[in-house]
Amino acid sequence: MNVQQGYTVAVLGATGLVGAHLISILEERKFPVKQLKPLASERSAGKSILFNGKEVGVIAVSAEAFEGVDIVLASAGGDISRQWVPIAVEKGCVVIDNTSCYRMTEGVPLVVAGVNDADVENHPGIIANPNCSTAQLMPVLKALDDAFDIERVIVSTYQSVSGAGKNGMDDLLDTTRLVYQKMDQVDPEALSKVESQVFSRPIAFNLVPQIDKFIEGGVEDGYTKEETKVIHESQKILHRPDLRITCTAVRVPVLIGHSEAVTIECRKPISPQDAMEVLEKTTHVTLCRTPESFPTPVEVTGKDPVYVGRIRRDTSNPEFGLNLWVVADNLRIGAALNAVRIAEVVIRNGWLKAKSQLAQTASIA
Amino acid sequence: MNVQQGYTVAVLGATGLVGAHLISILEERKFPVKQLKPLASERSAGKSILFNGKEVGVIAVSAEAFEGVDIVLASAGGDISRQWVPIAVEKGCVVIDNTSCYRMTEGVPLVVAGVNDADVENHPGIIANPNCSTAQLMPVLKALDDAFDIERVIVSTYQSVSGAGKNGMDDLLDTTRLVYQKMDQVDPEALSKVESQVFSRPIAFNLVPQIDKFIEGGVEDGYTKEETKVIHESQKILHRPDLRITCTAVRVPVLIGHSEAVTIECRKPISPQDAMEVLEKTTHVTLCRTPESFPTPVEVTGKDPVYVGRIRRDTSNPEFGLNLWVVADNLRIGAALNAVRIAEVVIRNGWLKAKSQLAQTASIA
Repeated sequence: MNVQQGYTVAVLGATGLVGAHLISILEERKFPVKQLKPLASERSAGKSILFNGKEVGVIAVSAEAFEGVDIVLASAGGDISRQWVPIAVEKGCVVIDNTSCYRMTEGVPLVVAGVNDADVENHPGIIANPNCSTAQLMPVLKALDDAFDIERVIVSTYQSVSGAGKNGMDDLLDTTRLVYQKMDQVDPEALSKVESQVFSRPIAFNLVPQIDKFIEGGVEDGYTKEETKVIHESQKILHRPDLRITCTAVRVPVLIGHSEAVTIECRKPISPQDAMEVLEKTTHVTLCRTPESFPTPVEVTGKDPVYVGRIRRDTSNPEFGLNLWVVADNLRIGAALNAVRIAEVVIRNGWLKAKSQLAQTASIA
Repeated sequence: MNVQQGYTVAVLGATGLVGAHLISILEERKFPVKQLKPLASERSAGKSILFNGKEVGVIAVSAEAFEGVDIVLASAGGDISRQWVPIAVEKGCVVIDNTSCYRMTEGVPLVVAGVNDADVENHPGIIANPNCSTAQLMPVLKALDDAFDIERVIVSTYQSVSGAGKNGMDDLLDTTRLVYQKMDQVDPEALSKVESQVFSRPIAFNLVPQIDKFIEGGVEDGYTKEETKVIHESQKILHRPDLRITCTAVRVPVLIGHSEAVTIECRKPISPQDAMEVLEKTTHVTLCRTPESFPTPVEVTGKDPVYVGRIRRDTSNPEFGLNLWVVADNLRIGAALNAVRIAEVVIRNGWLKAKSQLAQTASIA
């Protein structure tokens, strides 16, 4: 392979919301693409997308489509990944998978670029990209864990509808428009009748404290899968299986940008000043130092960093605890940007060849 | 006074959002009103409001206006209460104050009906109604504290714009409409330019993690006043000055209904089943037992109870900790309904006469 000419990159799920972001981020970052292969379902084949000003035809996914591909960026959903990723790996591709399919599979590195890049080295052809609400937490928690030994984390999320893809965004926009069209005056009772096609309750001017399915049984009984992803993925990425962590995940009527109210408890004493000194030097993190400079989802949309503000003592644990407000563009660091950054780690280190075999075909959806 | 004929009730701030709710809740609950005196600023005097089907003229507030009044329900803001409440007390009224003016004043009972009614007895002519985000937490925390000895509470709020009054609701509705009028396609960058007249950042399709001003200095440096209200008012109402509690308060683009993600830590072991057994018998609380039956703000609007759902173990503290999702109509239990319920406690017990003197004229805004 000729590095100067670049790499053949396939985007699986090229016509989706994250797929579109993957393609524009490859452009933005001048990723060395020799050839782009936008892959999608039979239904989308024949469409075309723009890449570096040129039209590129979308190809239906097939085993042959992976021939000669160096890197696959997969974001077409867990079922598609389960079907096609092993085939791509067999064809010698490195797959960076945005779905939850292989995240908890032993031997598959789960990576946030800038946090645990070294984990990429021994990949078995698959590198997993964490859930969006986990991804934005990691640079912050990693830096604070290294400095102050985090004992416990409590997270409440405020997640935008784009976490549910383009359908999620359309649903919020359409149902909100309906509220204005149907009512002379916005009537709270009528609001409850504006049904959502995507979320389990109306989302227009409302909140839905359910993201993904509910878990039944065990200590996680009553949690959503989204919440358990934050728990288990954080433990894996931080190499802290002992980390005590809990999460409440809530969908909010925001288009793009996930926010998180985070309470941490450390083993070493910590002050807001201490934390700020660490975070202002942390890769991919932008510190919002004064109370008034807090980040909001609308303001961080389209931006690369994770923004951290409202750093203050936890009044319930003032010596060892802090509260923080963490906001990021979920389509970027939470998905497409992190995937491209992982691809950059792979090529920068010459880690294109799998150094291990996938331990099992079993996967966790 | 002739109880059969009822009481003379003044509503101070009768033309505001909470004032309107106070008047409709007096009707709904058939509160024994002999005469209603809607009081407001000079500007609103001469308007009229409907009470039990009859038009009643709004009177400009003055010392004379409190003559012969038994109960004053005050919800015209802290400055108005600071000016007029002492005068009303001097005229022999019992004032139930919805503002933060006297909440932390020593000797003034701070009451959530059904939680600490006995505190009303020795009032000095003023009984304070807590902040909306505190009020809905109290029935839940009180019941669980009595049964399991709460050690620590961590609250993240999702507060609707009606907490900022009618202006807050209008601002969300108007700025959201602007988004549709100004954009062919909702453009995230343009969203940040839809300025709010009420909140410190745009609220349409956004979040604002600032409610009220920021505190400077001390352990609460960087907290908002809203957050410290939840902390101090909870300690006072629960008679638990030692309670370890912290809060992050966030304004969300919801019209009515405050939601709270709450993590509690108890001194006694607690399971979701234990908590449900207690909460299903708790006054003013409606238990949403299954994960799928979680409450949302749109669904609880206009309803009286505090709704508690998503009760599950805290995975970071599974033996002693729980997570809960608490939702209520902030204009009802968080304001008008609790005020009328306090008035009912006063008349039911014959506690109309002040048994103490206000210790000081000093007050906390």
